[in-house]
Amino acid sequence: MTNSLKFELHAQLARDCLPVDDWPLCRVLLMNDRRFPWLILVPRRVAIGQIHELSAADQQTLMAEINDASERLLAATGLARVNVAALGNMVAQLHVHIIARHDRDAAWPGPVWGHGHAEAYEPPAAQALIEKLL
Amino acid sequence: MTNSLKFELHAQLARDCLPVDDWPLCRVLLMNDRRFPWLILVPRRVAIGQIHELSAADQQTLMAEINDASERLLAATGLARVNVAALGNMVAQLHVHIIARHDRDAAWPGPVWGHGHAEAYEPPAAQALIEKLL
Repeated sequence: MTNSLKFELHAQLARDCLPVDDWPLCRVLLMNDRRFPWLILVPRRVAIGQIHELSAADQQTLMAEINDASERLLAATGLARVNVAALGNMVAQLHVHIIARHDRDAAWPGPVWGHGHAEAYEPPAAQALIEKLL
Repeated sequence: MTNSLKFELHAQLARDCLPVDDWPLCRVLLMNDRRFPWLILVPRRVAIGQIHELSAADQQTLMAEINDASERLLAATGLARVNVAALGNMVAQLHVHIIARHDRDAAWPGPVWGHGHAEAYEPPAAQALIEKLL
């Protein structure tokens, strides 16, 4: 196999996020922005930019992993609402945002994308959240 | 059965959208905003606000209908990119946005939600798009 057939995380996702886990389909990331509890699921597939480009079987696994990520994020944060989205306007590699929201967060009720600037976690705070998520 | 157990489309979705079709799980709507080719899928379930509140079977059907809506919208418009999102910050009834995007649209590369004001279709233009989608 050539190197081009191996999954590689997009450089911007690698830069903006902290690694959490690898699930059957997706690499699970935590966006390094303490303003919003925010997971990103990246299917470990090559040259896939959108959900409908995945096989039907991978789509079903992705849905199960979206469900799992949503429930873990709400349980870890005590919040009640998630935003789930695959946009890809900036980073073409398929990635699904799972963001816990509440009515006093920095962007409420608007979308979080493009809202202000990320504020990095203190490393122990990020580690504590990742442990709660696992 | 009491009336409260019957699916009813949220009043704001009914006001903002045009009806397209009913699929096995979802009511399919066209957002009445000609700036963006924009479908909305609303599972015909009662008191469901988020994807993870659906049964596993309904989640799988929803994923299949997201796939179908994405492919139909891209085929009807000749565009290449969809944004897929379930937010629910404004309207609590679960609804999934499927929006065809391109790099000269009014909000690119930002999200469409909260961007400017909707511009209604001329009725024949909406009807022509709905016929292409079906």
